[in-house]
Amino acid sequence: MDELFERGRSRALQTLYRDLERGRVDLDLLPILSLINSSPNYYTTSSCSGRIQVASTRIPGEKFKMIVIAKWHRPISVQELEGLLRFAAYPDIWLSVQGPILHVACKTMKDAVKLVNMARDSGFKHSGIQGVGRTRVMVEVLSAERVEAPLRLNGVEALNSEILEEFVARINEVLLKGKSRLRRLATALEPVVSGCPPSDSA
Amino acid sequence: MDELFERGRSRALQTLYRDLERGRVDLDLLPILSLINSSPNYYTTSSCSGRIQVASTRIPGEKFKMIVIAKWHRPISVQELEGLLRFAAYPDIWLSVQGPILHVACKTMKDAVKLVNMARDSGFKHSGIQGVGRTRVMVEVLSAERVEAPLRLNGVEALNSEILEEFVARINEVLLKGKSRLRRLATALEPVVSGCPPSDSA
Repeated sequence: MDELFERGRSRALQTLYRDLERGRVDLDLLPILSLINSSPNYYTTSSCSGRIQVASTRIPGEKFKMIVIAKWHRPISVQELEGLLRFAAYPDIWLSVQGPILHVACKTMKDAVKLVNMARDSGFKHSGIQGVGRTRVMVEVLSAERVEAPLRLNGVEALNSEILEEFVARINEVLLKGKSRLRRLATALEPVVSGCPPSDSA
Repeated sequence: MDELFERGRSRALQTLYRDLERGRVDLDLLPILSLINSSPNYYTTSSCSGRIQVASTRIPGEKFKMIVIAKWHRPISVQELEGLLRFAAYPDIWLSVQGPILHVACKTMKDAVKLVNMARDSGFKHSGIQGVGRTRVMVEVLSAERVEAPLRLNGVEALNSEILEEFVARINEVLLKGKSRLRRLATALEPVVSGCPPSDSA
């Protein structure tokens, strides 16, 4: 089992390094990714530091029917949003802000429980163990930060143009609040993972 | 350990029955609650079948600063929303739709993993094991359905009055979609919990 975990870990890290070289990794994630992956007992499989996304969809959450029009991993300006709305011809458009999400493979159940506890203490209150496999225990680290607001319904603009600037300020605030949780989690994790010996998965 | 789980279970069920008598349990939850609590290996500690909530808050998710103005566990009408906005004097108001959420105490890790797998297969994709105690394993069952939209920012109405009716129709759709997942989960759970023997937690 140890060997299989090691094999999965090295495959995942190879993909991560390749993505890093190609500039495909969101820079806000780097500190937490290096920290988690420096421990022999954990590796990350997929992650996002939080993002603002604009999509064509009737209602939020229709993952398979939605068309993503734009996404940003940083705060946006009101001009960017206005420009987008001018050119996006879809009748139904929603904007979402999603907090950070990490998927972490853990060597043992004990490692997984430790990570979930620290994540929940750092404000990622919907974190949990999502699967127990033969070679690893999978944890999802997830916070409750969220916006899901309509921008256009049936071809009519949903938000008053008067409040657009304030709306953008508030959604940027939600995005940055999520990202600040990642730093809090990194601070909490540091003493646990740095120099920690491999756990015994027997 | 078995005995401590039994004691926790009987305390939780007593509270549930008392809440039922007082009409405090959301009726949409009854089928799933009776099903889960009929198994000797599980009991529910807190649950919500999904709701529409209007609150005074600068940004969504500020749990400790927010003031809840109204909440409904059923679809609402545009008149209800307009009436509310007429009388609510707060400068910042957001509306949220939250999908169902269940917290379930499980006797063993095996029972917990079984529940998480079934919940995820029924569309509750953020479900997971949140804590492993001496006497029980806690699972959160959570779906991704969500709306978090501004109704008023800095004293100015955020949504165009023209789209209010359509907005209410869409948020009701999100609410009902979440509730339909509860029925799907109940169907999946039924063969597993009905007549199932107590698990051995040794």
